[in-house]
Amino acid sequence: MMLEMDIKTYMHQVGQAARTASRAIARADSNAKNKALLAMADAIERDSAILLAANETDMTAARANGLDAALLDRLSLNAKSVAGMAEGLRQIAALPDPVGEITDLKYRPSGIQVGKMRVPLGVIGIIYEARPNVTADAAGLCLKSGNAAILRGGSEALHSNQAIAACVREGLAAAGLPETAVQVINTTDRAAVAELITMREFVDVIVPRGGKGLIERLMNDARIPVIKHLHGVCHVYVDDKADMDKAIRIADNAKTSRYGTCNTTETLLVASAVAAEFLPKIAAIYASKNVEMRGCERTRALLKDIVTATEEDWHTEYLAPIISIRVVDDMDAAITHINHYGSQHTDAIITEDYTRARRFLREVDSSSVMINASTRFADGFEYGLGAEIGISTDKIHARGPVGLEGLTSQKWIVLGDGHVRG
Amino acid sequence: MMLEMDIKTYMHQVGQAARTASRAIARADSNAKNKALLAMADAIERDSAILLAANETDMTAARANGLDAALLDRLSLNAKSVAGMAEGLRQIAALPDPVGEITDLKYRPSGIQVGKMRVPLGVIGIIYEARPNVTADAAGLCLKSGNAAILRGGSEALHSNQAIAACVREGLAAAGLPETAVQVINTTDRAAVAELITMREFVDVIVPRGGKGLIERLMNDARIPVIKHLHGVCHVYVDDKADMDKAIRIADNAKTSRYGTCNTTETLLVASAVAAEFLPKIAAIYASKNVEMRGCERTRALLKDIVTATEEDWHTEYLAPIISIRVVDDMDAAITHINHYGSQHTDAIITEDYTRARRFLREVDSSSVMINASTRFADGFEYGLGAEIGISTDKIHARGPVGLEGLTSQKWIVLGDGHVRG
Repeated sequence: MMLEMDIKTYMHQVGQAARTASRAIARADSNAKNKALLAMADAIERDSAILLAANETDMTAARANGLDAALLDRLSLNAKSVAGMAEGLRQIAALPDPVGEITDLKYRPSGIQVGKMRVPLGVIGIIYEARPNVTADAAGLCLKSGNAAILRGGSEALHSNQAIAACVREGLAAAGLPETAVQVINTTDRAAVAELITMREFVDVIVPRGGKGLIERLMNDARIPVIKHLHGVCHVYVDDKADMDKAIRIADNAKTSRYGTCNTTETLLVASAVAAEFLPKIAAIYASKNVEMRGCERTRALLKDIVTATEEDWHTEYLAPIISIRVVDDMDAAITHINHYGSQHTDAIITEDYTRARRFLREVDSSSVMINASTRFADGFEYGLGAEIGISTDKIHARGPVGLEGLTSQKWIVLGDGHVRG
Repeated sequence: MMLEMDIKTYMHQVGQAARTASRAIARADSNAKNKALLAMADAIERDSAILLAANETDMTAARANGLDAALLDRLSLNAKSVAGMAEGLRQIAALPDPVGEITDLKYRPSGIQVGKMRVPLGVIGIIYEARPNVTADAAGLCLKSGNAAILRGGSEALHSNQAIAACVREGLAAAGLPETAVQVINTTDRAAVAELITMREFVDVIVPRGGKGLIERLMNDARIPVIKHLHGVCHVYVDDKADMDKAIRIADNAKTSRYGTCNTTETLLVASAVAAEFLPKIAAIYASKNVEMRGCERTRALLKDIVTATEEDWHTEYLAPIISIRVVDDMDAAITHINHYGSQHTDAIITEDYTRARRFLREVDSSSVMINASTRFADGFEYGLGAEIGISTDKIHARGPVGLEGLTSQKWIVLGDGHVRG
């Protein structure tokens, strides 16, 4: 373990190298960036056995340290997930290059033309937990968007991440780009994170991917802007003007297609006028899939055998086969519930009523608002971003799935012909 | 003066009221917002004498406290500047409403339609110094963009700001909107700022308008995202392929049209091949306008009587009739100088060379990059934003002049017909 002073020195070297590399990456052309991405993918495929051996080292240590099954699952790599990393990099290579895109170029009364050019953010610090595949995904997304990256993975994935990092460096070098454009921190000391989130001169934005504890620590300690994803307490509201078939299909899919994802619905809201018709049908489906239901009093009057939802349930992201259910008077009550208890992640209304659908879209203050669609669609691939670095529950800069565009900004450009201001 | 505990309680009441009001303002229609803006303008015109009397109270105290001439100038109102405040509010009313704008709505292979809707940020905290007209401008911009605002003006402008606030409240009430949508803090205690920049549950973003000291304090202490404007060290680079007439006109205008603005050029860079031709001509103009020139050695070889520019000069925003001048070998040296010494605000190249112009646009990492135009154009009105709340030198969320759009964000909307994720 390094001394604290060594960590500071090390992190400043990393930061300085990233800042320098970011200038080269910002002006790299699409061809060079894509060449690097494809070379990374090739190296990962070629080194699959090396990656799996490094991962086995991490897995052995993790088992010895008594990590729980969910963490072990997220840490583990296999031939398929390694191939998936390579495929992900090739998909990023195939995406359009956002950097340099000029939009909205218009003549002004003064005679100048004013527009915007999309530009990289500079240096992006990414702090993540178990999953080693984030190393490849994040490296690819940062590179394609013209940014340098400093990656800080979980300590339990150190060997896996370093093996992936070697492939990333090889890809950069193959395209003549600086290897320091993507640096993976090679210490597990937490002091490295403390430096990373305060090195304002070297890092432009922090993207954390991890649990609530990590995020809250960053919110307090970071001195650099953070694009954060807090949690997903998502809702489906079944309106009394809903098509019942669509409502059943969506309430089922939004909860049961996957339990551990942030876009999974955690609370079902049902208009009282259709509760007696709708609830027994959806409850039969949930029961058949062993989903535990926790209901308000009006729900329990219709579904006898379920437990009472507490105040805390309405705030909870279960990430498990559990759903809370509340009968509400109308859409206004549903919107009030969502804006109060929700996490501004993803919320859907099921209705055939035009005016209510229009109001729901406008009045629900969440990063994704849906009509007659499953909350499970809130995802970079589904939205056409090609890939995502995460899902932002913040309000400034980026909301919802963050892809290449979310890792860029826009500067103003002005074209003149000797124009001066009067 | 309130006790510290009272300040905390007071600020939390203000914050809670702003959060509640923000929901009403977010869903207010364009008509109501415009009605409020026009009623504010009418109230300000009607109460011109009251505003001027309140301002005279502030001016008397400021003179007694020995405030310098520049501060007194910024603090003072007159009939013309009061009329300008009203006119500014009417202009904001005339701007298109950004809230609710839906863009990029496209069908995805899954069958869902995905797009973006422009939405308010929520509650905006604005911290500013002397100028009382910011109270009206900021209130207008926040309202039109669907946000609630908490305004904290300079202590020396307390009476002026409260008088303007009364007109703002009257306008809100006239349109049936909550008066707490715009609150002007009525204490000069600095503890109020400390609360404002850490009340994460009530405030979504802080926009400071003030000197470097204020900004640096906020960067350290704020626990809420800050859209900041640090300073403007702007450059004009005269390339050896420049049209000399355009170069002279722009170098003159960029420096001498106003000295105290952040988009004023502070450093002139000149390609060595044209320095002997260009520098004596521009120097004669600067000398005739009493602009002090500070040059590098190569500049001084051509302009005998000027002082030597120090390392510090290249970093300095003079806000005064002073300019630093450096002869550089070529455009690459100019870009290196700008990216090193500049403040990423506004920088211009004067050239007729197509490839250099294209490279300069891409490689200069500033919020506004210009070709053959004066840096003085970097301004919300000139860019067609209608008005600006400030100029951001940040990289995330907004760069350059921040208008209504910069006070909003975009959420995702998904339209389906019973779609579920496979």
